[in-house]
Amino acid sequence: MDAISVIRTKRDRGELTAEQIDWVIDAYTRGEVADEQMSALAMAILLNGMNRTEIARWTAAMIASGERMNFRALSRPTSDKHSTGGVGDKITLPLAPLVAACGAAVPQLSGRGLGHTGGTLDKLESIPGWRALLSNEEMLHVLDSTGAVICAAGDGLAPADKKLYALRDVTGTVEAIPLIASSIMSKKIAEGTGSLVLDVKVGTGAFMKTIEDARELASTMVALGTDNGVKTVALLTDMSTPLGLTAGNALEVRESVEVLAGGGPADVVELTLALAREMLDAAGIKDADPAKALADGSAMDVWRRMIAAQGGAPDAPLPIAREKHVVTAPSSGVLTRLDAYDIGIAAWRLGAGRARKEDPVQAGAGVELHAKPGEMVTAGRPLLTLHTDTPSRFDYALESLKAAYDIAPAGTEFTPNPIVLDRIA
Amino acid sequence: MDAISVIRTKRDRGELTAEQIDWVIDAYTRGEVADEQMSALAMAILLNGMNRTEIARWTAAMIASGERMNFRALSRPTSDKHSTGGVGDKITLPLAPLVAACGAAVPQLSGRGLGHTGGTLDKLESIPGWRALLSNEEMLHVLDSTGAVICAAGDGLAPADKKLYALRDVTGTVEAIPLIASSIMSKKIAEGTGSLVLDVKVGTGAFMKTIEDARELASTMVALGTDNGVKTVALLTDMSTPLGLTAGNALEVRESVEVLAGGGPADVVELTLALAREMLDAAGIKDADPAKALADGSAMDVWRRMIAAQGGAPDAPLPIAREKHVVTAPSSGVLTRLDAYDIGIAAWRLGAGRARKEDPVQAGAGVELHAKPGEMVTAGRPLLTLHTDTPSRFDYALESLKAAYDIAPAGTEFTPNPIVLDRIA
Repeated sequence: MDAISVIRTKRDRGELTAEQIDWVIDAYTRGEVADEQMSALAMAILLNGMNRTEIARWTAAMIASGERMNFRALSRPTSDKHSTGGVGDKITLPLAPLVAACGAAVPQLSGRGLGHTGGTLDKLESIPGWRALLSNEEMLHVLDSTGAVICAAGDGLAPADKKLYALRDVTGTVEAIPLIASSIMSKKIAEGTGSLVLDVKVGTGAFMKTIEDARELASTMVALGTDNGVKTVALLTDMSTPLGLTAGNALEVRESVEVLAGGGPADVVELTLALAREMLDAAGIKDADPAKALADGSAMDVWRRMIAAQGGAPDAPLPIAREKHVVTAPSSGVLTRLDAYDIGIAAWRLGAGRARKEDPVQAGAGVELHAKPGEMVTAGRPLLTLHTDTPSRFDYALESLKAAYDIAPAGTEFTPNPIVLDRIA
Repeated sequence: MDAISVIRTKRDRGELTAEQIDWVIDAYTRGEVADEQMSALAMAILLNGMNRTEIARWTAAMIASGERMNFRALSRPTSDKHSTGGVGDKITLPLAPLVAACGAAVPQLSGRGLGHTGGTLDKLESIPGWRALLSNEEMLHVLDSTGAVICAAGDGLAPADKKLYALRDVTGTVEAIPLIASSIMSKKIAEGTGSLVLDVKVGTGAFMKTIEDARELASTMVALGTDNGVKTVALLTDMSTPLGLTAGNALEVRESVEVLAGGGPADVVELTLALAREMLDAAGIKDADPAKALADGSAMDVWRRMIAAQGGAPDAPLPIAREKHVVTAPSSGVLTRLDAYDIGIAAWRLGAGRARKEDPVQAGAGVELHAKPGEMVTAGRPLLTLHTDTPSRFDYALESLKAAYDIAPAGTEFTPNPIVLDRIA
């Protein structure tokens, strides 16, 4: 077995054998297959595809590259959620404590942001004292004692995926459905959750720009989960405009706390409840009422305990950016488009995201929206507020906002996209 | 400008701009673009292609990565030959002194063998004392004083190609016509020859398996040469069976000397003369008679002076392998097939070639053929003789010969392929 023959098989549109896949993943993890060989293979996979049999084996080989956890010792059924990433997507923050308040255990191994999509851990780190890095024992303790935990995945989980993900990021091979599906699912299956709800984003702010691609990704992941004994459901959800009214770390924590307090933007509440119902259903919990758990403060209670268990101060003031810049509406009328990608890039340029893995993020930076598509705006009144600690970034951020929105004359018929576009189980 | 955006352009079937190509070749040569990025780009080029404009710019950028030589100080017109590589392809050895004997200057910057095709320098190094590495000054001196020189290309010529070639070799990205064409032509144009004849091999023992692919490669290279002021002609020649009766280093030198002495196998003589006539024509030399230069010993004279000028002893006995193994014909009849690729692999496994760049080769190892397609063979009489210093290699070599030949009943109609299949100018 050698790397070149594996690369040639896929390059020439052949099907990789189980032995080829097992060997190449293992040899890459050990460093025997070089980065430049794996990136050529990744490009061949991106352009020539993999069938479901190959994707299943590829996923299994990545799981086998590391340790497997399990939550069988817990008294509650586990349910996890994964989002493919979007702009203003803070849903994990209210969702994990909400589902825990309804009786499931929610182990959320999350990531950091790279590029225009934010990372859940970056958002939570804006809470003074909060720690993302837990040992396996600490993680199980927080999960068992509060019902939910949001933390960084340990190094032992699917190390092949960690290495491959970093490689794809610098070689233009991120946007391959077989590689995205196996990357997500290898971590979730290795983590040992009993059930999983996937939030597959569609639109300008998402990796998947079309509903067809999103459906293909979702059904690939649902099949992988199901075949590996994880009850898996996917919602396809709209990412043509940001979720809620904020994109940025502390800004999104504040909005999440509003949702947990029974308020918050309607779209964030709607998606949080839709995902909570799917997670509870997948975990086999029948008679819980997540809307009630938001209204009666029980979800907020779990949030406070969960944050505190990881060293965070739930009542401490959140960081605020030192500088603000207001973008006003150039005309009056109906806001018909507010582009998720452009807002994501602006937030990133203001300091909310990072260009390279080792860069720090600004806790207070980001974009605040004063209107959503379908709402009326008035010429000269605030449309967006930009937040940053480094005002020299305003011009660079404003550049990405030049064509970020459309305003139509008052009275124009306009129906915003629904949040949930489809469901795949 | 960044590597990922260049990779994405080609990945998404776009045309690379001149600026993208110039930047990526320069940045790769400087080490700013990493090997894993260039290999992903090479795979995207292999699968999605490049048009003639892109190939021309890519070639120009590789030329610009290093120095350019010129032979304008010479009193004779220069003509060079390049073969895309085959089994038993020793043509450069008799050809260079032959063309020099007819009045042209022949600067042959040659390579070493990798995989199943032999390398001209490996062959010549079986001559005691002969040196492949010359300084630019030494090279010009040998060329000026003898009319021909065969030596290794200096490090200063198209360094981007050197780096990219080594990368393609380990990443399954060798077989891309745009990359093969630009690799060959960047070196030949930088070398500064006035005219160039390309021997593009077609068949099992060649990189190009079909006449259509070979024609595409040839016409791409002819256009590149012509556009860069080098008079360029290509012959498409048969590589379904080895050239001559030997594949191996010293074995092929011995056969080449036979040709220079006025003898040798008919196919080697035919191809040597065909290429010599093209080279002389391209160099503008009208009234030379290469057949006469073989018959009257003037080509042999140049050979002896050329070898001696690089430290070689033209009369010293050539190395002979310590062990031989004879393969006999299993039946009597007409030999209708003797596969070039299988013979090439056998010679390689016997020690004539190398698996990795740093491996040594055995001077005496190789395969001797006792019949060629179209000739009669007799059951139990020798068909092939295998040569090696390490008899443990016989079994491994014999494995590649299991399906290497077909023998049809005596009287079966059979016409071997012509040597020259097409000409592109």
